[in-house]
Amino acid sequence: MPILVMKFGGTSVATPDRIRRAAKRVGREVAAGYEVIVIVSAMAGETNKLVGLVDDVAPLYDAREYDAVVSSGENVTAGLMALTLQEMEVPARSWQGWQVPLRTTSAHGAARIEEIPTGNIAAKFAEGMKVAVVAGFQGVSPEGRITTLGRGGSDTTAVAFAAAFGAERCDIYTDVDGVYTTDPRITDKARKLEKIAFEEMLELASLGAKVLQTRSVELAMRYKVRLRVLSSFEDNDENAGTLVCAEEDIMESNVVAGVAYSRDEAKMTLVSVADRPGIAAAIFTPLSEAGVNVDMIVQNISEDGRTDMTFSCPVDQVARAEKAMVEAKAKGEINFHDLVADTDVSKVSVVGIGMRSHAGVAAQMFRALRDEGINIRVITTSEIKISVLIDRKYMELAVQALHDSFGLERAA
Amino acid sequence: MPILVMKFGGTSVATPDRIRRAAKRVGREVAAGYEVIVIVSAMAGETNKLVGLVDDVAPLYDAREYDAVVSSGENVTAGLMALTLQEMEVPARSWQGWQVPLRTTSAHGAARIEEIPTGNIAAKFAEGMKVAVVAGFQGVSPEGRITTLGRGGSDTTAVAFAAAFGAERCDIYTDVDGVYTTDPRITDKARKLEKIAFEEMLELASLGAKVLQTRSVELAMRYKVRLRVLSSFEDNDENAGTLVCAEEDIMESNVVAGVAYSRDEAKMTLVSVADRPGIAAAIFTPLSEAGVNVDMIVQNISEDGRTDMTFSCPVDQVARAEKAMVEAKAKGEINFHDLVADTDVSKVSVVGIGMRSHAGVAAQMFRALRDEGINIRVITTSEIKISVLIDRKYMELAVQALHDSFGLERAA
Repeated sequence: MPILVMKFGGTSVATPDRIRRAAKRVGREVAAGYEVIVIVSAMAGETNKLVGLVDDVAPLYDAREYDAVVSSGENVTAGLMALTLQEMEVPARSWQGWQVPLRTTSAHGAARIEEIPTGNIAAKFAEGMKVAVVAGFQGVSPEGRITTLGRGGSDTTAVAFAAAFGAERCDIYTDVDGVYTTDPRITDKARKLEKIAFEEMLELASLGAKVLQTRSVELAMRYKVRLRVLSSFEDNDENAGTLVCAEEDIMESNVVAGVAYSRDEAKMTLVSVADRPGIAAAIFTPLSEAGVNVDMIVQNISEDGRTDMTFSCPVDQVARAEKAMVEAKAKGEINFHDLVADTDVSKVSVVGIGMRSHAGVAAQMFRALRDEGINIRVITTSEIKISVLIDRKYMELAVQALHDSFGLERAA
Repeated sequence: MPILVMKFGGTSVATPDRIRRAAKRVGREVAAGYEVIVIVSAMAGETNKLVGLVDDVAPLYDAREYDAVVSSGENVTAGLMALTLQEMEVPARSWQGWQVPLRTTSAHGAARIEEIPTGNIAAKFAEGMKVAVVAGFQGVSPEGRITTLGRGGSDTTAVAFAAAFGAERCDIYTDVDGVYTTDPRITDKARKLEKIAFEEMLELASLGAKVLQTRSVELAMRYKVRLRVLSSFEDNDENAGTLVCAEEDIMESNVVAGVAYSRDEAKMTLVSVADRPGIAAAIFTPLSEAGVNVDMIVQNISEDGRTDMTFSCPVDQVARAEKAMVEAKAKGEINFHDLVADTDVSKVSVVGIGMRSHAGVAAQMFRALRDEGINIRVITTSEIKISVLIDRKYMELAVQALHDSFGLERAA
């Protein structure tokens, strides 16, 4: 029987009524002849509540205990979804990560999936079970401890299951009806895309368009998983939502596909660092070990053998980053005069595979920002995106200006 | 190093502040030279919230999924407690049931502990860990699914760990400062007992005095675990709380140790049942299979080969009991004219090992109730207790009258 993976995010399972609504969608796919693997997130708000409790008792927590705590929200939803399906006479059971077992690395809080043995679930399908409800976001380490895959990790769980089971498609049900050219809350000119290339989605996801977790898109690209993002609050026809697919499946597209942003960034500068070979490694190794997700990096021109090193990271990792830097200094691994954190910056980016064949996108972007009087603090570029760090107060304005400038309200 | 088991109930870990307070108590025992096994319940209200969700989506639920859902509350507290201890520089880690593994039967919702291998935790103690925080109430079945031990099961977890690890003592921290002659909310004459015999505690626990789960007392009696009940909201000296101990350790005691009650009982009567050999088995086997905890049973005098069979059970099991009886009738296993459920009754009991050597306790009890005009609907007795089912509206009055009649406000 063909296998379908359906993933329901937190808002789609926020209440018993919504769980019933989601279960009905699952029931329809079962009636259509699929064996279904349902991946569920925690009920909306639960994971934040759990993270808040952890932060309360232990601001600099042991990530192994963090994982044990925050993974519990998904377990609840998985059981409730299985029960709801059973009430609808659909044979279902729940699976927690360790029961699959979904094996991951030991990198607690941001573990990577290593293996999903299909035997246990396949055996139940063979016995007549129609739906395996799997708690998303979690797995088990080689040491037998619970791991989590990072925020939004349930998307990655879903794609990994689709790959492991050779699923026909992976449908991600969420609270939006697809992927937009930018966040519709920022400009009402935002337009839903019918299709988007994996590469573009990857940049948008990593830039803070919270529709899909980055790694889920990477994984879908690598294993050629047909990935569909669609709303759990609307009746969907076959062409609903946005299909995330290979570049060659998209006939026409704008040069820029979308404008993304990440509101809560921080810019940290190590002032007057000794500029010697290996200094970047000496700085970024302890940051990495402390679990800081360094994003943009800029090194100033060196003067008298010293330089300033600037990097950005999510605001909530600033304390952790500072601790890592101070400890590295204490150990004599690095040396700096001052550590300055600016926690009032945002990142805005334009993304599009069309950039590869069109020159002048960067220039057009910088002009659009200049025309609004927005100062650019840091710039980074890749083959298909350009990102700038700007003062947070200009973020909405910047997104609107760029959306207008690249004509994104119109399809190609 | 000597091992101590400390169990904290839901109100003792209801907030991060209370978890910190509990952790400080644990830290003091570690400083005093103990290796500590901490058993935690879910934060107050969490388990009820989870049960409510299950009831919402599936009133007649699959107990395996129920267990997967409701066990999650304890996992959260275990992680938070381990983190809090780590913040206090006490080496600690959390263990979920399947990680110990705490092996149980497959009787979901009311599983029995079969084995607690000590190896995993002992190995961590040997490495310098001082506190193992274990999620109470849960275990894992031979099929690898999560089981729970029934409401209040964390007490049983605690005593079982104390037995398995040969702990010096098992301290049950709760929201009361010990075991009382009756519920102080019902009469302010209620008096805290310094000691109580296992047998008495067993009857009180099973009768609804919610201080300790019945099975935890059974287990403590069988394995001679020194069990202490004490408040997590007071500073306790060495003689704080109530020691639950063997009968021979109690020098003097009242004939009646306490008056217990169970408010939400239901009385069900199968009207006009064919009175034939095996009829009791035919009725109570399907009830047992449906997970109904039948308590009192009364069979009327038979007339024309038919009789009425009355039994009591918790109010929330009435729907389940009715379903089981109707199904058994449909299958032809039993035959009755009518099924009458009275969901407005309570049970009141007097308990005391002194009854064994004192006649007249039953007569005194019935007189006390008669003097208040309280009608007795069903009576059952055992060696050390007498229970009556009465209309719920008289429950408080009955408890007060019996407490007075047996002079329980004064120590022996």
